[in-house]
Amino acid sequence: MIVVKVGGSLGINYDAVCDDLASLIKSGQQAILVHGGSAETNLVSERLGKPPKMVTSVSGFESRYTDRETLEIFEMVYCGKMNKGIVERLQRRGVNAIGLSGIDGRIWEGIRKSTITIVENGKKKVLRDDHTGKVERVNLPLIRLLMENGFTLVLCPPAISYEGEAINVDGDRAAAMLASALKVERMIILSNVPGLLRNVQDESTLIAEIKIEEIEEYAHFARGRMKKKVLGAVEAIREGVREVVFADARVPEPITSALAGAGTRIR
Amino acid sequence: MIVVKVGGSLGINYDAVCDDLASLIKSGQQAILVHGGSAETNLVSERLGKPPKMVTSVSGFESRYTDRETLEIFEMVYCGKMNKGIVERLQRRGVNAIGLSGIDGRIWEGIRKSTITIVENGKKKVLRDDHTGKVERVNLPLIRLLMENGFTLVLCPPAISYEGEAINVDGDRAAAMLASALKVERMIILSNVPGLLRNVQDESTLIAEIKIEEIEEYAHFARGRMKKKVLGAVEAIREGVREVVFADARVPEPITSALAGAGTRIR
Repeated sequence: MIVVKVGGSLGINYDAVCDDLASLIKSGQQAILVHGGSAETNLVSERLGKPPKMVTSVSGFESRYTDRETLEIFEMVYCGKMNKGIVERLQRRGVNAIGLSGIDGRIWEGIRKSTITIVENGKKKVLRDDHTGKVERVNLPLIRLLMENGFTLVLCPPAISYEGEAINVDGDRAAAMLASALKVERMIILSNVPGLLRNVQDESTLIAEIKIEEIEEYAHFARGRMKKKVLGAVEAIREGVREVVFADARVPEPITSALAGAGTRIR
Repeated sequence: MIVVKVGGSLGINYDAVCDDLASLIKSGQQAILVHGGSAETNLVSERLGKPPKMVTSVSGFESRYTDRETLEIFEMVYCGKMNKGIVERLQRRGVNAIGLSGIDGRIWEGIRKSTITIVENGKKKVLRDDHTGKVERVNLPLIRLLMENGFTLVLCPPAISYEGEAINVDGDRAAAMLASALKVERMIILSNVPGLLRNVQDESTLIAEIKIEEIEEYAHFARGRMKKKVLGAVEAIREGVREVVFADARVPEPITSALAGAGTRIR
């Protein structure tokens, strides 16, 4: 079984991802697809007159400031437009897909951060109305129940807090928790870049392979959203996933290519 | 087991619906909730600069003109904001809810209408790019699988065509198909009116009971969206549901009240 995470950045070819996934599934590969939706969320937020606000934590990670209104826009795009768009694509290709968020059946459960400390204009600031958190548990029995009955799962954030609140969580790290819980051999993280680059301006500087014990030497090459992908990859491998591949979702057969050696492999 | 359909019109108290449903489920009642989202879809459509367009079929039924862009807004509101909002409310009340649309696992399958004939300014007009259809099949094994494993289902349109396209279908009639397929005793259709009224301007003119053989004498009292609710009720009863209740979703304990005799009962 593989876990495939496909990002939500501009340029991603969802038709190619679904074509590839459908033919892999028809040839007997078991797979779970986790998806993002950040670029579309930004677009819809702007159009609804609620522009996105990104914040940077004290440890240097960027995330979406998620008040209640933003959470609802996030759900509209992730669970509505993106999730159902992917499920429909798979259904049209003969795959009996089911789309769920982390709150459905408590698939992804975790803590809501009561406060987050961010850095704004060089100063620390504490946010208290942020609906974000971190996945700590995966509802494996529900996932197995659906897979054993022939369904292909298409999952996305939000997750759910222990108290039952919807929480915005990072999709890459949620996918990593899923891959670890399922003890899959491989997780593939597709985005709009070919993998981890030494120089983000130059796609020819792709790093082809990283051994987990050398990760510190490479992690500093990650910029922006790639930082959390590296974090997710490290978490997955520490929890027993054999290999994580960062690969390009703008090309034909992105999953098959990643399985065949394209992108950055972390073992 | 009961099927509860809650509409999407203004004034509906979803907290009250979820409070009531959660306590019924905790006392052992099995239930499936089907929901709408029309008022919110109109609002979001307006804010996105794509105002809703309602069309009237030659047989006098009103429906939403659903081109591809409208379908995606519809999915954002129904499958995103409304569905996940209801699932979260139920989760907070201790009910392990799962939200699915009709395309997930092909829960509601049917035909896409290749064309629909509408009446506009007194003239007939044929629409060819409308993504609407009619539910003909219910995926009962999937519904039973999830219910038998302790999950409470929260369902909404769209449905899926036999070819795998998302199709906008009427929620009341989809709920009626579900109630018939499950052979439930009772279906409750909650909206922002107390039931079927002789005079839509006067809530004291509520019709308390209708025998199915007398339906022709009462159906003409239905206006606007109530027409399809009557159609759904008739379809459900003809397929073996013992009783359909139209009741008010603006009051506390709307489901318990409907079970206890409030609203319009059709048998």
